[in-house]
Amino acid sequence: MSSPKYAVLAIGNAIVDVIAETDDDFIKAESLNKGGMTLIDAERAKTLYSRMGPGREISGGSAANTLAGLANLDHKCAFIGQVADDQLGEVFAHDIRATGIDFAVPARAADVPTARCLILVTPDAQRTMNTFLGASQFLPASTIDPQQIADAAILYVEGYMWDPQEPRAAIRQALPLARAAGRKTAFTLSDAFVIDRYRDDFLSLMAEGAIDILFANEVEIASLAQTDDFEAAVAMAAAQVPLLVVTRGEHGAIAVRGGERVEVPAEPVEHLVDTTGAGDLFAAGVLAGLCEGRDLKQCLTMGAVCAAEVISHYGARPEADLRALISARLG
Amino acid sequence: MSSPKYAVLAIGNAIVDVIAETDDDFIKAESLNKGGMTLIDAERAKTLYSRMGPGREISGGSAANTLAGLANLDHKCAFIGQVADDQLGEVFAHDIRATGIDFAVPARAADVPTARCLILVTPDAQRTMNTFLGASQFLPASTIDPQQIADAAILYVEGYMWDPQEPRAAIRQALPLARAAGRKTAFTLSDAFVIDRYRDDFLSLMAEGAIDILFANEVEIASLAQTDDFEAAVAMAAAQVPLLVVTRGEHGAIAVRGGERVEVPAEPVEHLVDTTGAGDLFAAGVLAGLCEGRDLKQCLTMGAVCAAEVISHYGARPEADLRALISARLG
Repeated sequence: MSSPKYAVLAIGNAIVDVIAETDDDFIKAESLNKGGMTLIDAERAKTLYSRMGPGREISGGSAANTLAGLANLDHKCAFIGQVADDQLGEVFAHDIRATGIDFAVPARAADVPTARCLILVTPDAQRTMNTFLGASQFLPASTIDPQQIADAAILYVEGYMWDPQEPRAAIRQALPLARAAGRKTAFTLSDAFVIDRYRDDFLSLMAEGAIDILFANEVEIASLAQTDDFEAAVAMAAAQVPLLVVTRGEHGAIAVRGGERVEVPAEPVEHLVDTTGAGDLFAAGVLAGLCEGRDLKQCLTMGAVCAAEVISHYGARPEADLRALISARLG
Repeated sequence: MSSPKYAVLAIGNAIVDVIAETDDDFIKAESLNKGGMTLIDAERAKTLYSRMGPGREISGGSAANTLAGLANLDHKCAFIGQVADDQLGEVFAHDIRATGIDFAVPARAADVPTARCLILVTPDAQRTMNTFLGASQFLPASTIDPQQIADAAILYVEGYMWDPQEPRAAIRQALPLARAAGRKTAFTLSDAFVIDRYRDDFLSLMAEGAIDILFANEVEIASLAQTDDFEAAVAMAAAQVPLLVVTRGEHGAIAVRGGERVEVPAEPVEHLVDTTGAGDLFAAGVLAGLCEGRDLKQCLTMGAVCAAEVISHYGARPEADLRALISARLG
């Protein structure tokens, strides 16, 4: 097997974030699902946008954010996602390419616009996401190229992609291709509500051995295992995947690989601003560590350092030199 | 004369900023005019964008930024500028309205897109602006409503608007309307290169008594007076306008009103990030102070506080509560 061209190839939603500060009264008045991700349609997106404060537009998308972290750490990556032929699509495509990530999927006609996520950030730095999937939900399976999948050490897919039918079909096609090429597959559970809708699918994928590395946070793992007993949930999921990584916000993270279990605390953050992208960047650090052949504890620490950077500013993509931060931390 | 509905009505370019970090090598390689504003065409905008790093999109435009500062300080304002019927136009219109500013000019057909300013920020926090004026240069004189002008205590116009023909005609129509309604007019010189192109026009406006308040920085005032002798330049300009305000970056600012001359130092900034909008927010603080009937020294201090806030983060619109900062400073 040849040395892979890419560290990670990701399939994810191609989203531009629209980030605005707000207060808890607004979250309540608009009946928003605080801290979660809610899918909204075009009409609701228009109404909510008209009511929210001035925004800043920064490229986002869970898996794309993870790749931005990996690219910041000098790992070559590629992205598969669907934008429309409009200005937000140009912004997304420009930003991901300017980050050094290969992105070859052509823009779709702009009858349905590029996806956007209206993100309301409260003073506690919690982010409440309202996603209009737009063009992103029409990612066709034809964008899956067996050669590109074989060219990546790890295929990474986001659970968010399971909602729309076409991307789900694309992922169902991609996962076995990665395994057939002798590559690893990684999956992030993304959101407790997504799991609620597709628990059986996700459990089947795990049972079939389609997932080598599973990322989740503690709410998601509880939803997957349908238990509030954290240890029971971890045990259940760890039995189904070779490597399980669970983030616990300010309580750090754990990983279980066979009989090995590792735990790290969260890294200190001087000014907590916006938690958007914390999980995405944690995954970036872990995947980078795995690609570099680091031990599990170092991988988790790298994840924690990357997450700490991204929550210290608005926007879900890193602004600092992550390698320098990791070197300062790991020596 | 009735009490005005608006503190300030501004005529300016309706621009979305695309802000990316860069280094001096890039500035040199692209032959950019470091620290200045350069007008670029659609093709150059496309090329430069393709070469610059990932951006963040934040509404901008000099006079619009000034209004955002005034609105943050609870002064009711209105804006006249031209966007196109496209996604960046929606972003601009949303942001200015969400800030509480009245903006009624309908979007123009999207054959020419909304203006954008590609802003490269170097590690010294200097910003280098490359503006594609797009729809903004087609602001028709028909958007000038005599009633709206009479409704504002101050009509504020940016020198940048002098480049394209239609906005220039709009401003030429607006200035005498404000004076006829007994309102004040304020003008910002915007940029030394703009002054180079239209020095005679600007000097004529001043000589005719069309400008009550003139804003400039030290480079602009030198360009206007065609002398590097700062005091000579100030004396020349001050003789032509009732109130002259000149900002000097880290050296503070001065104002001259008849025989009165006031000077303030720059306010301290903990982390200097991006100087975009410094002059715009200085003007906001000064105009707010004037509307509140403050003395000239307090007006300048308010300007300095507002400028210090906006250069401590990316983006040319305030993120903090300016009134709280001013209260802390002035007591």
